[in-house]
Amino acid sequence: MNNKNPDCSIILNRASNELNGELTPGLIHEVNNLLTGIYFNLESCHESCSADPSAAEALSDITQGVERIKEVLNRTVHIHLNVAEREKTYHDLATLVESQLDLVRIIFPKTAKITLIPPVEALHVELAEHPFRTVILTIASRLREIFPAGKVEAVFEIFSPSQLEALVPAADLNGGGNLVAVSLCVPCAMESVSEVDEYLLRSTTGDLTFANAENLTASLGGRLVLHRDTAKKSSRIMLLFPQIDLNE
Amino acid sequence: MNNKNPDCSIILNRASNELNGELTPGLIHEVNNLLTGIYFNLESCHESCSADPSAAEALSDITQGVERIKEVLNRTVHIHLNVAEREKTYHDLATLVESQLDLVRIIFPKTAKITLIPPVEALHVELAEHPFRTVILTIASRLREIFPAGKVEAVFEIFSPSQLEALVPAADLNGGGNLVAVSLCVPCAMESVSEVDEYLLRSTTGDLTFANAENLTASLGGRLVLHRDTAKKSSRIMLLFPQIDLNE
Repeated sequence: MNNKNPDCSIILNRASNELNGELTPGLIHEVNNLLTGIYFNLESCHESCSADPSAAEALSDITQGVERIKEVLNRTVHIHLNVAEREKTYHDLATLVESQLDLVRIIFPKTAKITLIPPVEALHVELAEHPFRTVILTIASRLREIFPAGKVEAVFEIFSPSQLEALVPAADLNGGGNLVAVSLCVPCAMESVSEVDEYLLRSTTGDLTFANAENLTASLGGRLVLHRDTAKKSSRIMLLFPQIDLNE
Repeated sequence: MNNKNPDCSIILNRASNELNGELTPGLIHEVNNLLTGIYFNLESCHESCSADPSAAEALSDITQGVERIKEVLNRTVHIHLNVAEREKTYHDLATLVESQLDLVRIIFPKTAKITLIPPVEALHVELAEHPFRTVILTIASRLREIFPAGKVEAVFEIFSPSQLEALVPAADLNGGGNLVAVSLCVPCAMESVSEVDEYLLRSTTGDLTFANAENLTASLGGRLVLHRDTAKKSSRIMLLFPQIDLNE
């Protein structure tokens, strides 16, 4: 019996995660079927018990709980590949980012406050939603360990081209104009994607690396850029995309 | 904007699966909290509506549905790393395999019939449950595509050392005696682990390969062996482990 492979715990972790991806749709399917049966029974209870106010209230609470479970499960379904979501479409950037924050909140600890500062005007991008979501969640999942435990306040910000020019020297943007940014400040000074991955190396076992987030961002027609703050105590992680003018 | 990376859809698939692994515990936690609230409300409904037989029956059906959801979710938790489950312990082999089949059933299509033929006598092995489960599920996940769609009948079998000797020439077992086997027959003739991975190459995007299952089996102190049937129309995938005699 040979027992020579040194990477078994890495293989085990990665295969476990991949199996989760395989199993989750089946589980959600089963749970959804069960919820449908529960709904059906709740309706007949409502008919029988509507005269009793305390029972009616409890039944209404149960119905709300069941609906919330459906909602929570549907979030996971969104992580799975969806052909439509891999097609490029126009998005209002604030709406697009906001709709990912529910899942970001699951990745961060419960005590974390995850918010979005929307832009003053509506900004539009053209990209596929599924890879964009994977990039945002990959970044969130990697960054979780950088924030000090217990007092996490992760603020996503969206910058218009003019705000971005005021924030970052044009040279740092490689001269590309008319770019919008989804930005997140982290409380440590890092300048490059590889620096983040090196810093977090001890816990890197899979594909949730900044290098992979960078490749996916490029495949979306954007760029992942790190910008160290002048005070040098923090960095901005920025996703840059060309802004689309819908009126043109 | 560079868009040069050709492997983005592979990165996307792998990162999506890994994110699923990251997200699932948070989602299960949320759903479990909701289920606790539903339980509480079901109890007060039972008190109010116990006089009405049709309401009582519907409530009892709801309670059963909620309990089943809890059970289904707990199955997924089992895929996650559990320190205790990574420690070597003694197992009755039939009980150990049977307890994995619930998850195997989720991986195979709904129409599949997954069964276990237990050994005539109790057989014991010493191994860690979590890697063993990962091996079984990895094999199941890879094999799913080999079985003809719609009429899947996957029979796991457990063989004692004497049954195994009658089935496979000693030379093929590398001479190791006192081995027990968990075996699954597949309807195609393949002789090696790499042959399976090559055959299934078109859909291999991650860590659910036979090569990885082989490494994990070795880390458990066992061996993954393929044995082509004499009729040459099928192969046995076998996990061999040394049998432990608890009476010694």
